[in-house]
Amino acid sequence: MISDNTKDITDDIIHRTTLAWLQERGVELADVAVLVHYLQHSYYPDITLDECQKHVEHVLTKREVQNAILTGIQLDKLAERNQIEEPLVSMLCQDDSLYGIDEVMATSILNLYGSIGMTNYGYIDRVKPHILGRLNNHENGQVHTFLDDMVGALASAAAARLSHNRKQTKDHQRQEMVIPRQDPRNHPPV
Amino acid sequence: MISDNTKDITDDIIHRTTLAWLQERGVELADVAVLVHYLQHSYYPDITLDECQKHVEHVLTKREVQNAILTGIQLDKLAERNQIEEPLVSMLCQDDSLYGIDEVMATSILNLYGSIGMTNYGYIDRVKPHILGRLNNHENGQVHTFLDDMVGALASAAAARLSHNRKQTKDHQRQEMVIPRQDPRNHPPV
Amino acid sequence: MISDNTKDITDDIIHRTTLAWLQERGVELADVAVLVHYLQHSYYPDITLDECQKHVEHVLTKREVQNAILTGIQLDKLAERNQIEEPLVSMLCQDDSLYGIDEVMATSILNLYGSIGMTNYGYIDRVKPHILGRLNNHENGQVHTFLDDMVGALASAAAARLSHNRKQTKDHQRQEMVIPRQDPRNHPPV
Amino acid sequence: MISDNTKDITDDIIHRTTLAWLQERGVELADVAVLVHYLQHSYYPDITLDECQKHVEHVLTKREVQNAILTGIQLDKLAERNQIEEPLVSMLCQDDSLYGIDEVMATSILNLYGSIGMTNYGYIDRVKPHILGRLNNHENGQVHTFLDDMVGALASAAAARLSHNRKQTKDHQRQEMVIPRQDPRNHPPV
Repeated sequence: MISDNTKDITDDIIHRTTLAWLQERGVELADVAVLVHYLQHSYYPDITLDECQKHVEHVLTKREVQNAILTGIQLDKLAERNQIEEPLVSMLCQDDSLYGIDEVMATSILNLYGSIGMTNYGYIDRVKPHILGRLNNHENGQVHTFLDDMVGALASAAAARLSHNRKQTKDHQRQEMVIPRQDPRNHPPV
Repeated sequence: MISDNTKDITDDIIHRTTLAWLQERGVELADVAVLVHYLQHSYYPDITLDECQKHVEHVLTKREVQNAILTGIQLDKLAERNQIEEPLVSMLCQDDSLYGIDEVMATSILNLYGSIGMTNYGYIDRVKPHILGRLNNHENGQVHTFLDDMVGALASAAAARLSHNRKQTKDHQRQEMVIPRQDPRNHPPV
Repeated sequence: MISDNTKDITDDIIHRTTLAWLQERGVELADVAVLVHYLQHSYYPDITLDECQKHVEHVLTKREVQNAILTGIQLDKLAERNQIEEPLVSMLCQDDSLYGIDEVMATSILNLYGSIGMTNYGYIDRVKPHILGRLNNHENGQVHTFLDDMVGALASAAAARLSHNRKQTKDHQRQEMVIPRQDPRNHPPV
Repeated sequence: MISDNTKDITDDIIHRTTLAWLQERGVELADVAVLVHYLQHSYYPDITLDECQKHVEHVLTKREVQNAILTGIQLDKLAERNQIEEPLVSMLCQDDSLYGIDEVMATSILNLYGSIGMTNYGYIDRVKPHILGRLNNHENGQVHTFLDDMVGALASAAAARLSHNRKQTKDHQRQEMVIPRQDPRNHPPV
């Protein structure tokens, strides 16, 4: 039995809450998969939405990603409920162009998969395809100042993970043609 | 006359609020100056607390620094008031070692003065001298999960600014001995 | 008289060398100004190429920017001359999509002006307008693996600086209408 | 058969070269394991050097880590051989305190394991325990401007990975006492 309830927060609870909060705020994993596909289909014409979503799901198991998404969504919700003080609440509700803590937190997601995710993130943040356009409208008094950056970063990190995995698969196939035996320990998943 | 009051948030208001919130949470600029002195006096034995505080004050005029400090202190205050949801509130109140959004936000302060601030920040974050030790105690139910990182980053950024300025002063003195005239535009303040 | 010649490297020499190396590699400051204009003219329709170039010039006075540009161009030149060993030289000459040290170094430029430069950088890195398209062609055996990222980051940092300055000017104008006197120390240049 | 030899660079070759170059420059994986132990033994008194080294080895399978180490060691070697131009070579050979590209590249290693590695890195970079002290001496005309930062970042990243894994093991043990069955897919390795 565990008596000290402050220690009851397991990785599993944090993971489930992250998935639940994304859904509550209107983001389905399939929406994020569409962004990954948008970013990568010109490089890998055979990718499917299923493969894209598998990478999104894996990125969402990382603790740093969960931390950023939970903190960002929490700030959006508190801004909607007017529980944030001035001048911060106005900066958040207006998505002030000089307020960059949302991008800072997005970076903490991107960095986990190396620098190659950053350019994808910058690109979709500007073009705002699919769900990013919808989130950016801030309809019905909703605040998504953090959420749109979290979703863009999540998709870009998943795209980076997909690129790393595709490259490794290609290496394996090439080596199998040339070298009969090799140690699989040298090719861990990203 | 300005009718649209959502646009009334000037840089001046954001700057003043940052200074006020630091003070309300128990951080005097003189405390931060002591940290800068702690970090730099072995390299520059002649530095004074006044010089250190001048650099702290300048760092605090930067908008990105203000954004990080306001957002961090706001999260600390909301956690104290129990206005943050689970599991996030427990992560913040326990200063969970795998919760790193406070360090992520500290990085956004450090980065403004280049990578040289990062090692100073890491050092004082571990050693916790002076006010950092006091903030880290979380006495009387106070939550300073973000504030201690903001203060450490502020001091480290000010130390980086001091290093840059000292180097430039030395360059000028050396050049004045050798080259009679030069263009001051090449030596802007950091 | 300076006897110890290892200490003769002043900020001025580093600054001048940065400008010279950019020009030697085919990058004029006017080319970078065109990129800044491309990024910002939709937000500020009245900006001129002169104003854009002024911001580029200021960004180039920062030591961290100089460090990144000198190191990046040096690596490009060494790769061209085949003075880099395998497998690194092949990764650089092919601009391998999983080699991200060029983006890492670009980040050190962007970070100096906060996170708002990052999305601009990601966007032009993907769209490759103007000089970025030319550098990316790697004509005549030239290697610009680092240079194109340095130029994109330089333009994005200058765009971020322009945004900060424009916002401050607007604040001043608004305040002058409302408040007769104020302390200019609260509005330092970015 | 592969005719285009520029494509022959597999992940395996990059991985092996990274291990070889570290050893050639005097860094054994056991030296890095000692640093991980130094950073973590107060939190986990039961950790062994074997466990520490296992995490170092895993960090070294990441492509971004390999990119940073190869590029950093290459620059150190070129500086030793005087194949880098002025003023850059003097900045590298003197380990100029305002030259921070080594820290920038270290960050790209640290970021892969989240922000918690950063404070460890800053701490050992300042204290310089064990092999870091030896590398920092730059004996016999050797240049280790990049290598010492790469080794410090490698150890700090391995320490962050160890922390993440220990936390997950603890969660599993706790949950096994309470919940009979659970889905292991929710607890992937970091």
